[in-house]
Amino acid sequence: MAKIQVFGHKNPDTDTVASAMGAADLLAQQGLETQAVAQGKPNAETQFALDHFGLEALPVIDKAETEEVVLVDHNEAAQSVDNLADVQVYGIYDHHKFSFENATPLYITAKPWGSVSTILYFEYKQAGLTIPAKVAGMLASGLISDTLLLKSPTTTDVDRQALPELAKIAGIDDLEAYGLAMLKAGTDLSTRTDEELLEGDAKSFTMGSHEFRIGQVNTVDIDDVLARQAGLEEAIKAAGYEDFLFVITDILNSNSKGLYIGDAPEAIEAAFGQKLTNNVIDLPGVVSRKKQVVPPLQGQF
Amino acid sequence: MAKIQVFGHKNPDTDTVASAMGAADLLAQQGLETQAVAQGKPNAETQFALDHFGLEALPVIDKAETEEVVLVDHNEAAQSVDNLADVQVYGIYDHHKFSFENATPLYITAKPWGSVSTILYFEYKQAGLTIPAKVAGMLASGLISDTLLLKSPTTTDVDRQALPELAKIAGIDDLEAYGLAMLKAGTDLSTRTDEELLEGDAKSFTMGSHEFRIGQVNTVDIDDVLARQAGLEEAIKAAGYEDFLFVITDILNSNSKGLYIGDAPEAIEAAFGQKLTNNVIDLPGVVSRKKQVVPPLQGQF
Repeated sequence: MAKIQVFGHKNPDTDTVASAMGAADLLAQQGLETQAVAQGKPNAETQFALDHFGLEALPVIDKAETEEVVLVDHNEAAQSVDNLADVQVYGIYDHHKFSFENATPLYITAKPWGSVSTILYFEYKQAGLTIPAKVAGMLASGLISDTLLLKSPTTTDVDRQALPELAKIAGIDDLEAYGLAMLKAGTDLSTRTDEELLEGDAKSFTMGSHEFRIGQVNTVDIDDVLARQAGLEEAIKAAGYEDFLFVITDILNSNSKGLYIGDAPEAIEAAFGQKLTNNVIDLPGVVSRKKQVVPPLQGQF
Repeated sequence: MAKIQVFGHKNPDTDTVASAMGAADLLAQQGLETQAVAQGKPNAETQFALDHFGLEALPVIDKAETEEVVLVDHNEAAQSVDNLADVQVYGIYDHHKFSFENATPLYITAKPWGSVSTILYFEYKQAGLTIPAKVAGMLASGLISDTLLLKSPTTTDVDRQALPELAKIAGIDDLEAYGLAMLKAGTDLSTRTDEELLEGDAKSFTMGSHEFRIGQVNTVDIDDVLARQAGLEEAIKAAGYEDFLFVITDILNSNSKGLYIGDAPEAIEAAFGQKLTNNVIDLPGVVSRKKQVVPPLQGQF
């Protein structure tokens, strides 16, 4: 058994799987015994990337099985394994806000960049180590996933520098074509129920006296999702939320529409400078909940 | 006014002052407007280093005066400025255990190495930037201070690699002579009261049902300190501690003696395999409270 398991957050996405693979390989090249694992099965987008590069899915764990661990793409205990408090954190690679506490000095590399895959690319580079082609392919995929092919406003100059260099190492000839195919693979929503669509990525936010729940889904055809509007509205009402904004994002054209059910329609319209029509509002140019949805809403309360 | 103030912990020591200077310069070379400041005046050891390299003491602040800040040599709010919650942490350079929480992604470079000065040396190196000679002198001093001239068990291989390279840049010809002179400058205890000696560096530890307070002082002559034994014992008793172990460390010979007042003398003797005589116990080879005093004591409770 390896001495150090390396894993990302619960509900693993492509950046979490890619950065677990990257960090495990990087640290192994530096002499540690590591094993990349995941807190769940790959989603459809990640599976597409794994298949493309001929890789197996990571072994699934529900608790850490080694005395020392490395966390990637998360640092908060709530997103980590349940027995985190019983093991020692050797290191962390992350790009999120921080809420971390431990009892011994450790390695942390955190940067406010578009993906953890980007951070790992530069860690390999600084250490003068070679990235295996398949690992580079997964890191490119993680970077594409978190930045929506460099179109999300979370994208930084270092992400734009890293992606073509990773693609070259991975032998991805047409980056745009690969990236869109991968993102599209993650958007087959037909097999998911209305509740699953709404809750898959939903987070709660307190704004003034309002409790907002904001979900988001990526698609290549917004109308496909809106064809299910009646069922989605019913599911929101059945769940009993005070305010629910469901952001449907067109990853090809970097636009969104919002489906809103709640008692503050004027605030929604003022936040985005658009009118609600049949509970739907245009959100032109919006792709990032964190940067383009939450701040204007907060400004209204 | 600079846009980003850079500072270390309260009761600044040489590594905190040196790493504030180093981080401020490194980030300025990378295009940020920074200002190194400190949460207090330099101690005698740090003043020796500043004088040696012809540097002024850092401006003293009691709260952060810029919207963004960089923390060095600490990450816990209790050791930082009182208005930390009102400003944004741009980045952290640290080598301690972690207890940090914030609301936005940030830069963190943490390593379990002997000093933050060591971390900054390698940050300059990785970025391909030149360390100004005076900054290198302070970083060498911070490294010497935290590792007791590479003799503390907290010393790592990277510290051993960094120190001679920093000394070369700083133009320190005789590293041993400079280091001992600097450490000695910090050991003039004659101007400090018994209470100041005991409490200057004391920390509390819960061990089983016992509340241990452990202080430590560096000296070049243990007998000089023990000449004040009667006054020190009186001060411990007056403060009402259940168990107080005062570790007096000879930095020239890397040995210590412990003055113990409390109700668990057998545990003290068993922890260190030595006998207490007139409340004093030999601690041969002990220089690190964190690595050589706390763990054997904890093993007894």
